[in-house]
Amino acid sequence: MCLVLSKVYYEVIKLNTKSMFQLIDITGIVESVVEKSNIRNGLVVIHAPHATASIIVNENESGLLEDIVEKVKEFTEPGSSKWRHNRIDDNAHAHIGSALFSSTRIFPVVNGRVMRGTWQNIFFFEMDGPRSRREVVILVMGE
Amino acid sequence: MCLVLSKVYYEVIKLNTKSMFQLIDITGIVESVVEKSNIRNGLVVIHAPHATASIIVNENESGLLEDIVEKVKEFTEPGSSKWRHNRIDDNAHAHIGSALFSSTRIFPVVNGRVMRGTWQNIFFFEMDGPRSRREVVILVMGE
Amino acid sequence: MCLVLSKVYYEVIKLNTKSMFQLIDITGIVESVVEKSNIRNGLVVIHAPHATASIIVNENESGLLEDIVEKVKEFTEPGSSKWRHNRIDDNAHAHIGSALFSSTRIFPVVNGRVMRGTWQNIFFFEMDGPRSRREVVILVMGE
Repeated sequence: MCLVLSKVYYEVIKLNTKSMFQLIDITGIVESVVEKSNIRNGLVVIHAPHATASIIVNENESGLLEDIVEKVKEFTEPGSSKWRHNRIDDNAHAHIGSALFSSTRIFPVVNGRVMRGTWQNIFFFEMDGPRSRREVVILVMGE
Repeated sequence: MCLVLSKVYYEVIKLNTKSMFQLIDITGIVESVVEKSNIRNGLVVIHAPHATASIIVNENESGLLEDIVEKVKEFTEPGSSKWRHNRIDDNAHAHIGSALFSSTRIFPVVNGRVMRGTWQNIFFFEMDGPRSRREVVILVMGE
Repeated sequence: MCLVLSKVYYEVIKLNTKSMFQLIDITGIVESVVEKSNIRNGLVVIHAPHATASIIVNENESGLLEDIVEKVKEFTEPGSSKWRHNRIDDNAHAHIGSALFSSTRIFPVVNGRVMRGTWQNIFFFEMDGPRSRREVVILVMGE
């Protein structure tokens, strides 16, 4: 006789980006992976295996998305000669953004539902595009 | 004969906030949820399902809490006309703070104890208050 | 008959730091803990139980590491008299950095491998050194 078995389910998705900075809404993809997992309670990890991109969570309102990009540009100063890493590459800003704002987000999953708020959409945040075949690992774990 | 190890336990708490920026210490609540879960080893996710608040972790020293609020104000510029989102609402600063500083924190749980440092208290960080019925999802998973 | 899947394995490592700001690459240590865990699929949590340090993820390129430190110094203003916490201690900057940039990172684990990108090394980020016996909790959970 046995009760509860822990399960892990994951998918890796691929994205192409079109500009240096771009926010791509992947909320629907994340929710469909959670649905396919058949996991009712646990958590979902959304992870970009890249050092020049982030995963962030917020409202999908076009003005706000521009504001977020503007703030990150101000903070990370793309192309600045002050960054030592720009002597060997041109993307120090994207590394700094990815390092500090994290390339991973996590949500609780309860009764098969991602416990996100009404205005919490999930975005892949490109900071060093355009790039092809960017990846996002979506891993669901629970019971 | 069977050993069943994985468990998931969660609670959703509600908070009322009193000012635009406010840090509410929820360490005791998180620890009591972990205790009630009877989970000995695993992790606890503390998640605010809101796009204008964060969960942060640090020392509960009144001067420091004011410093953190001041820094986030400087960084996010409440009320600034530069933010496009403020044309349709007045809380772009809170969205930017929540997006970049994250609305989720996680701790290992070992031997029934949240593995936080002596000075690591857990805070709900209101950036768009006052609000009623703000929620925090606390989910414990493990064995 | 029963399949028992969930496992939790953890180690706590100790680090000594040599300067106020220092990035210590702990990627090899994290990967060896995951290997020892014998967990094939799940996740790994890397957590610094400190309020004046962070865990961050990025490329181990010496110029970039200096850039990241410079950015965090600019942002957190070590020694500034504007920080109230500096009246009772001298490390407000490190608290602010740890609170906002987080002291925890997480990676999916798939087929026994930490799903990090080629340029995603894992660092303990000291912001209030030198210190002895800094700790990092590495906890692996899965099947």
